[in-house]
Amino acid sequence: MSDTTGKTIKCKAAVCWGAGEPLKIEEVDVAPPQANEVRIKILYTGKIMAAILLPEHILRSPSVYKAFATPMSTLAVGLFPVILGHEGGGIVESVGEGVTSVKVGDHVIPLYTAECRECKFCKSGKTNLCGKVRATQGKGLMPDNSSRFTINGQPIHHFMGTSTFSQYTVVADVSVVAVNPKAPLDKVCLLGCGITTAWGAVVKQPGIQGSTVAVFGCGAIGLGVIATSSLVKASRVIAVDTNPNKEDWARKFGATDFVNPAKLPEGTRIQDYLVEITDGGLDYTFDCTGNVHVMRSALEACHKGWGVSTVIGVAAAGQEISTRPFQLVTGRTWRGSAFGGVKGRTELPGLVEDYLQGKVKVDEYVTHYRTLADISEGFHDMHSGDCIRCVVDMA
Amino acid sequence: MSDTTGKTIKCKAAVCWGAGEPLKIEEVDVAPPQANEVRIKILYTGKIMAAILLPEHILRSPSVYKAFATPMSTLAVGLFPVILGHEGGGIVESVGEGVTSVKVGDHVIPLYTAECRECKFCKSGKTNLCGKVRATQGKGLMPDNSSRFTINGQPIHHFMGTSTFSQYTVVADVSVVAVNPKAPLDKVCLLGCGITTAWGAVVKQPGIQGSTVAVFGCGAIGLGVIATSSLVKASRVIAVDTNPNKEDWARKFGATDFVNPAKLPEGTRIQDYLVEITDGGLDYTFDCTGNVHVMRSALEACHKGWGVSTVIGVAAAGQEISTRPFQLVTGRTWRGSAFGGVKGRTELPGLVEDYLQGKVKVDEYVTHYRTLADISEGFHDMHSGDCIRCVVDMA
Repeated sequence: MSDTTGKTIKCKAAVCWGAGEPLKIEEVDVAPPQANEVRIKILYTGKIMAAILLPEHILRSPSVYKAFATPMSTLAVGLFPVILGHEGGGIVESVGEGVTSVKVGDHVIPLYTAECRECKFCKSGKTNLCGKVRATQGKGLMPDNSSRFTINGQPIHHFMGTSTFSQYTVVADVSVVAVNPKAPLDKVCLLGCGITTAWGAVVKQPGIQGSTVAVFGCGAIGLGVIATSSLVKASRVIAVDTNPNKEDWARKFGATDFVNPAKLPEGTRIQDYLVEITDGGLDYTFDCTGNVHVMRSALEACHKGWGVSTVIGVAAAGQEISTRPFQLVTGRTWRGSAFGGVKGRTELPGLVEDYLQGKVKVDEYVTHYRTLADISEGFHDMHSGDCIRCVVDMA
Repeated sequence: MSDTTGKTIKCKAAVCWGAGEPLKIEEVDVAPPQANEVRIKILYTGKIMAAILLPEHILRSPSVYKAFATPMSTLAVGLFPVILGHEGGGIVESVGEGVTSVKVGDHVIPLYTAECRECKFCKSGKTNLCGKVRATQGKGLMPDNSSRFTINGQPIHHFMGTSTFSQYTVVADVSVVAVNPKAPLDKVCLLGCGITTAWGAVVKQPGIQGSTVAVFGCGAIGLGVIATSSLVKASRVIAVDTNPNKEDWARKFGATDFVNPAKLPEGTRIQDYLVEITDGGLDYTFDCTGNVHVMRSALEACHKGWGVSTVIGVAAAGQEISTRPFQLVTGRTWRGSAFGGVKGRTELPGLVEDYLQGKVKVDEYVTHYRTLADISEGFHDMHSGDCIRCVVDMA
């Protein structure tokens, strides 16, 4: 029990006031957690997929924001003002009535994909897409349809049920998990999205051991897919990226080959090239770009009869994937993955242990550190290409 | 050993001389089988998918012909003259050197999807798409790159490795399977394609027992999917067809519901309607239409988190399937099936036994009989809508 329990906390947060406006550091009031809610002191936040959530990017391209919102059904679409951020690490400051899954002082990771263990989805045993708080999360609100954030009495929207760009945030108790306090939060905060997404997409796909894999896009998620494919002993891991600087990164994370589609002979499609160099195509491919044309290439690079292509990247709004149906009829499978199919409350603690035991890379992704004051700078890092992941110190 | 062994046989066949020309009954010379080849006296031939292989249809729409050719890689595209037909039943008349899998007198079903048990595909254990004779089959030739059919010395192309519209045909030994001679060939000839395709697409898809299924299109394949879903105890089987006359057929084969997309309220998409009446969507859907728009509906009618949609229908050339990638990212899987994933030599004999034991419907599909002389009439039946399957007596 801290001395802030039951009281509104004033703290700093990066607020986005409208489409296209830069993040602004504001003093916000964070109300106490209500029943089944948890208030967290956020220590670090990462910025995976931050590029597309960058507010000025949103302003320039609201469709991108919307696109990301749609698949997850967890984003408030065009709801401003809002406190962004969905990849964080912190410590439980206080809990509302009825919270039993975490306690004050726990080191925790907020989960933009909740896990209630009670809904049709959770009980199905087939998916991690919990339905419990989906509707309100999509409206930028807590499950009781209100916000815990205000500035001078004006409500500020939550974002993806997490809003980690605030020194304090409130989340539903189904949207947070405690992890081993020995794990450095400035690293494991990254398990709140990107690295876990990549890890899950691979480990939950049976058959990768001994198989060939191609990974399209060598950002953090692509590198995570490469690392995990290597971890589970894929026989060959081909990294595909148009940025030649990514070759070193890809090989460092376990890629056996690197192919730059921009350097193929004129008129050669990447899928045809990959089919050629793999004697018929890949057993498994992963799109980690969000580009719908790349998604098609990834499918068509699969081996006839059994190849499986997984879409991980998030496309812009309204964009569609296409292919000729014979690609499927002749035995390829097109699927997708959100948060890697990982059930956050059940699986993240184990993943943190794996990290602590050196089985899962995390430190290796961090190329940049920022402070809350220059959080917008951090976003620009994302565009420069030599940034894999930037961690923001919220202190 | 018959008295025709080693000799050329003169017999009647329905020959297509060129795109758009009607089938013409001709006297053809059928050369003896070469090494690893089998000559079959065809007694009956079915016409599943015959509509799209109808020569005048081909002429009117060569793209359809080509489309069908492409996915299977087993059709001679635009190669004339040709003897069509890929669903037949007959008796082995003679075998070439080295043939051990069938013998003279065996009742057999030709296989347009070969099974060599030696190639990368067969050995993979993951697919039925044997690669052994694919290349030559796609050229309308036997594996030695020549034809066994001639008319006055002019070679006539084979078709899909089967050419069952001839009273005698020659096939590769990997493209034929012996079945129980107690099974009436005028019925089990239909296991050469349609019914088996439907059966395999369902039984090889784990999880259908106790699950909800929607079947788009109530032709023979759709009815087969309905029947097999019912057989494996799906909890609900929704048949979807714009032809109201198909409701009785669908229910007779086991459908629990029938939905006519043409009768939905204006502006209501079939996928939205199905999602609504199934509390979130179907566990499994099957496209049995070949219409790429229907394929999309079938995918999008799947339940978020776990729905699996299988494309069985064959689309016209150049047509593409599309969807928003979030359909996949949120847990739907898009796959396809050719010949139901069935390995013909290994699995058809058992399917014939299942038929003899009353476990698999076959007789119920046959609505029309024709003779070779009026085989073209049989094609027209296919268009009338009240024909499910027409069997041609080759005598």
